[in-house]
Amino acid sequence: MAITLKDLGEALGVAWEGPADLQISSVGALDSAGPQALAFLANPKYRQQLETTRAGAVILSADVPYSRPRLISANPYRDFTRAVKLFAPAVPLPPAGVHPLAWVHPGAKLGPDVAVGPFCVVSDGAVVGERTVLAAQVFIGERSSLGEDCILYPGVVVRERVQIGKRVIIHPNAVLGADGFGFAPDSGHYQKIPQIGIVVIEDDVEIGANTTIDRAALGETRVGCGSKLDNLVMVAHNVTIGPDTVIAAQAGISGSAHIGSQVMIGGQAGLQGHIRIGDRAILGAQAGVTKGVAPGEFVSGYPARAHKESMRQLAEIARLPELSKRVRALEKRLAELEAKERL
Amino acid sequence: MAITLKDLGEALGVAWEGPADLQISSVGALDSAGPQALAFLANPKYRQQLETTRAGAVILSADVPYSRPRLISANPYRDFTRAVKLFAPAVPLPPAGVHPLAWVHPGAKLGPDVAVGPFCVVSDGAVVGERTVLAAQVFIGERSSLGEDCILYPGVVVRERVQIGKRVIIHPNAVLGADGFGFAPDSGHYQKIPQIGIVVIEDDVEIGANTTIDRAALGETRVGCGSKLDNLVMVAHNVTIGPDTVIAAQAGISGSAHIGSQVMIGGQAGLQGHIRIGDRAILGAQAGVTKGVAPGEFVSGYPARAHKESMRQLAEIARLPELSKRVRALEKRLAELEAKERL
Amino acid sequence: MAITLKDLGEALGVAWEGPADLQISSVGALDSAGPQALAFLANPKYRQQLETTRAGAVILSADVPYSRPRLISANPYRDFTRAVKLFAPAVPLPPAGVHPLAWVHPGAKLGPDVAVGPFCVVSDGAVVGERTVLAAQVFIGERSSLGEDCILYPGVVVRERVQIGKRVIIHPNAVLGADGFGFAPDSGHYQKIPQIGIVVIEDDVEIGANTTIDRAALGETRVGCGSKLDNLVMVAHNVTIGPDTVIAAQAGISGSAHIGSQVMIGGQAGLQGHIRIGDRAILGAQAGVTKGVAPGEFVSGYPARAHKESMRQLAEIARLPELSKRVRALEKRLAELEAKERL
Repeated sequence: MAITLKDLGEALGVAWEGPADLQISSVGALDSAGPQALAFLANPKYRQQLETTRAGAVILSADVPYSRPRLISANPYRDFTRAVKLFAPAVPLPPAGVHPLAWVHPGAKLGPDVAVGPFCVVSDGAVVGERTVLAAQVFIGERSSLGEDCILYPGVVVRERVQIGKRVIIHPNAVLGADGFGFAPDSGHYQKIPQIGIVVIEDDVEIGANTTIDRAALGETRVGCGSKLDNLVMVAHNVTIGPDTVIAAQAGISGSAHIGSQVMIGGQAGLQGHIRIGDRAILGAQAGVTKGVAPGEFVSGYPARAHKESMRQLAEIARLPELSKRVRALEKRLAELEAKERL
Repeated sequence: MAITLKDLGEALGVAWEGPADLQISSVGALDSAGPQALAFLANPKYRQQLETTRAGAVILSADVPYSRPRLISANPYRDFTRAVKLFAPAVPLPPAGVHPLAWVHPGAKLGPDVAVGPFCVVSDGAVVGERTVLAAQVFIGERSSLGEDCILYPGVVVRERVQIGKRVIIHPNAVLGADGFGFAPDSGHYQKIPQIGIVVIEDDVEIGANTTIDRAALGETRVGCGSKLDNLVMVAHNVTIGPDTVIAAQAGISGSAHIGSQVMIGGQAGLQGHIRIGDRAILGAQAGVTKGVAPGEFVSGYPARAHKESMRQLAEIARLPELSKRVRALEKRLAELEAKERL
Repeated sequence: MAITLKDLGEALGVAWEGPADLQISSVGALDSAGPQALAFLANPKYRQQLETTRAGAVILSADVPYSRPRLISANPYRDFTRAVKLFAPAVPLPPAGVHPLAWVHPGAKLGPDVAVGPFCVVSDGAVVGERTVLAAQVFIGERSSLGEDCILYPGVVVRERVQIGKRVIIHPNAVLGADGFGFAPDSGHYQKIPQIGIVVIEDDVEIGANTTIDRAALGETRVGCGSKLDNLVMVAHNVTIGPDTVIAAQAGISGSAHIGSQVMIGGQAGLQGHIRIGDRAILGAQAGVTKGVAPGEFVSGYPARAHKESMRQLAEIARLPELSKRVRALEKRLAELEAKERL
């Protein structure tokens, strides 16, 4: 697809400057976009790349001086994202219908225009909503349900009685509804506690590749509307995650933790069980979160504490050799003084 | 299923108080169980929930005052777990027999009542024990063996020559027997070292979703009887894990480490290779374990050290700003004294 | 296979001592090898095992005294590795050809002697190079390409437009080309940014089980020639990794980080996005790398700093209780002196 600068500006609803008929056919980064591509500047730290970019046009805010073809936006990142959608090649997915090499139980219910790719399994009592796509090699367990317009990529496993909302995207080899890690110690051995709860995934959630979300022991594990989970994330049994929360790769949330809405959890962060993370809290990458976090608070480090405090402690630790030297000097001076005193 | 309070008490072998014919049809948590459900109190910290619970009956210890219907147990958690088993819905698994869309090599041996679900592969020389279930899309490599009554959930991959005991449960997309990470540096490049060893999983082991247990370079990687591994755990080549050890999610064990029996490894803990962890040791969540740990020892932090020591150091670090202030005060006072002295 | 000591020495091109016709039929570790096996000594710390080993022959360097049958090598580890290759049983893989239960799109191109195992999917426009093996249940997306002599183990998912070189090995359930984690915040919600870039895997790369390598937002994510990634590693969108770099299990690399060549990244290390790691740098296990690392530098800890510095700080922290005691003593002595002064 190619579109003129003028048409692109109008499609995005933003002002434009430059030749109205300049052809734009793709999007790219400032440092690699070619003369038919649109690039963007959102972070001032990349401003110097404007001097050397070969991009046909750049989307940026009004206050940035730039004399070549441009689109002017109050939120360049968001509007570039909208432009990316215009130019993005369609993700190849199987067409509506059941592939002859899929296996759909006669007791499953498929909505109109559902696509079931090769080697998928849809079990008895499962319900798949309109236009939802099971790409290939996907497993849907008994009595699980998916809403409309979901995409499940190859290798995704959804065990029984999992409830998935609308427009949910699940990346390859993610696992929903595996047994929670529950065992009762009994004279040196462990007895398995049946995990009879469910998993609920609300609308517009995205779940990364190889991420695991365990079913509840009793009750439910829940991921709130619009939340986004990266790859290799662990969500244990009975965890609840509020809406619009983002969780970066390899973070792990222990059983029965309650995460609020609009929380941001950094990569490889680990959360203890049964704690409560308030809305809009931020947990730094690799943080070891051992107790609850108040709404809006930013914590980091191990064990996690207020980020400012954490930074201050790290600075103090870096000054420890000097502090130790000063104590040695004090001891020497004091000893001298004491010696004089004794004379 | 529904059962009277009296019958439930007798089934569990515990005393009961309340209407003998009270119907109990499910289990639940104190804060959400309904009037036909059994709940439990094991941790005194939830005792206040007894006042508001709507649970039909509660299982608790004799010393807890509670005037409504109850079951009295010396170990409420264990006996509740047993009750959960009574009420747990059966996990839906494929019936005995080979699904027409599975592929079983003619040289594989399936015991009586084995179930092989759709899109499973069972390779030449593989042996599958009586009543074992391969749910769907499972891969069993050449000459691998599984004992009786195992459950392998969808997407599990077991490569060649892996030996799996009885009653082993393996959650979706876990991988057993992938090559260990072994390379010999050779003039700036790496030469692959063939990983020709095996993996041995003893009886009653449970392995979490997306967990990986690598085959040995030479010899074997072994997980002992009754050990439980959570999701996304990494067990490297030639690791040995003793019986009844539990490993929480995202923990990683480097090559040739030896883990004893009844060890507890916290989530995201990392263990260096070639170290020895004694029986009943406890490794805290996110611990970075760089050397051996004595039997029964509790270590935490990075690098891991005795947990008490670790806590003490963290407390000292928190007091660093104050210590630094005290040193500054000493310097000032000493300078004043020295000035007087010089007069 | 069995071979005489003489023939083995000649096959490896190293000197040998002992009975020329001694039969060697396998390889093993010093502490477990039997009388027909070759073992090796590379690390002096295991030298005492020479006294008790039952190995038929040992490969070691000339300066180690050993009077029993031996092979003499300047690099015992490398030459043992070469011997392992001689004795390694062939990895069982499906024969050339397309399994009747695989699904290959008519628009896919398979080179000569390609093997496609059961329940594999090869999509439209995909190209698979000569002798490459898709073991079973593998997914290859539209227009993705694989070079010659690759092995993709069961459950591997390669989404669309991913480019894979020659002799690449990908372990079970690894995922290449899932969407990068890119969302634009928009009034409290997140808008998905289409991830339209690709993944490029150069020749001789090895990728561990359940590892995920995301496609770029724009442009490419790239893993350089000869690099080796262990299990459960996360490589985010637009990351570039140079040649001959090794990344241990559960490490995570955030978006747009640039990793040089011959870098070594320890297990569970985490790298912030947009940073640059110089050639031959070493990042310790569990390091939290928040900024760029110079070529050849060794960093560790959280936040990562020069390893020596890191060790020194840890030592200072361990001495904190003592420092605190010394400050208390100074305060007492100074107070005494001040009291005298006031007299």
